[in-house]
Amino acid sequence: MASVEFWFEFASTYSYPASMRVEDVASAAGVEVIWRPFLLGPVFGKQGLTDSPFNVFEQKGRYMWRDMARICAADGIEFNKPELFPQNGLKAARVALLGMEEGWGPDFVRAVYRANFVDGLIISDDAVIARLLGGLGQDPGIVTTKAYAPENKDRLKAQTERAWDLGLFGAPSFTVGDELFWGNDRMEAAIEWAVSHPS
Amino acid sequence: MASVEFWFEFASTYSYPASMRVEDVASAAGVEVIWRPFLLGPVFGKQGLTDSPFNVFEQKGRYMWRDMARICAADGIEFNKPELFPQNGLKAARVALLGMEEGWGPDFVRAVYRANFVDGLIISDDAVIARLLGGLGQDPGIVTTKAYAPENKDRLKAQTERAWDLGLFGAPSFTVGDELFWGNDRMEAAIEWAVSHPS
Repeated sequence: MASVEFWFEFASTYSYPASMRVEDVASAAGVEVIWRPFLLGPVFGKQGLTDSPFNVFEQKGRYMWRDMARICAADGIEFNKPELFPQNGLKAARVALLGMEEGWGPDFVRAVYRANFVDGLIISDDAVIARLLGGLGQDPGIVTTKAYAPENKDRLKAQTERAWDLGLFGAPSFTVGDELFWGNDRMEAAIEWAVSHPS
Repeated sequence: MASVEFWFEFASTYSYPASMRVEDVASAAGVEVIWRPFLLGPVFGKQGLTDSPFNVFEQKGRYMWRDMARICAADGIEFNKPELFPQNGLKAARVALLGMEEGWGPDFVRAVYRANFVDGLIISDDAVIARLLGGLGQDPGIVTTKAYAPENKDRLKAQTERAWDLGLFGAPSFTVGDELFWGNDRMEAAIEWAVSHPS
């Protein structure tokens, strides 16, 4: 079955609508989605950026919020501009990575994005993560013990290094083999590529 | 008639496929295109950038060239990566601005982009500009005298200031009233907006 790797980060605004859409778009094309949480911090750091480009470049940031509102409205995705941006998604990314192994990862990812971009919650807050896990029938204590163990932390680091090696510089991104697509608006092109270039 | 302002700059890679597509996409929707040459240099300067972000951020630049090749192939637009990037489009922008008044502007714009991104020519070269004008049946001497006159230079400066005031931070961009859309990939959204929000 053709597949696409979907690279996302919780601090990335456009990763939110992408996460809500990707399974529908891919399954309509018969393509499997492999969810790849990674960390933008180290990727931005390698490019000399110490903050989100949407904060560094004010006019671009203002546009992004307006564009997000339009895109979410067009796609029927709830959206409320959060007061805090970007949020620290490190813990949530560690949990998400574990969840991908255990099968509840995509649901957790969507729950985290809704917490951030609909409910305005602080997604680095242990109580918020625990509540989201509980909502998925997961035991927060058991999950976070595994997710925050050195082995899982190292896996997230390695995945982030692989993202860089694949040429990623932002999120969301999609890869099909070595072929890179950047942005929620390139999702359809990436999935078409997966269909026409099965591995 | 509904209209969209199309903001482009000759140093902008994605402005090339946008310029080749915009009349077809707009006319299919019954929307008029108002071509707006402007200068990215001052707009980047206000954001603290002294070079193209595609040169400043190497990994992003590498991606852009691959993305351009894919996009042009998909749209049936010829494309050869130029050796020099970005090129200085100041003179060509002054000529294009004059051409918009005289009716041959859009053809000149497309000719300049083809010279840059198909034929690998230096578009700041007076002989290249003269040849492109000649190909459109224009007298290069008469045109450039008018285009490089202080009054026309000032009009381009004023247009660039208006771009900034409208919130532009890159090219190509589209505006419908105060509503801003950034990128070749937002063209369809901008034109839909023009249709649903006639002035």
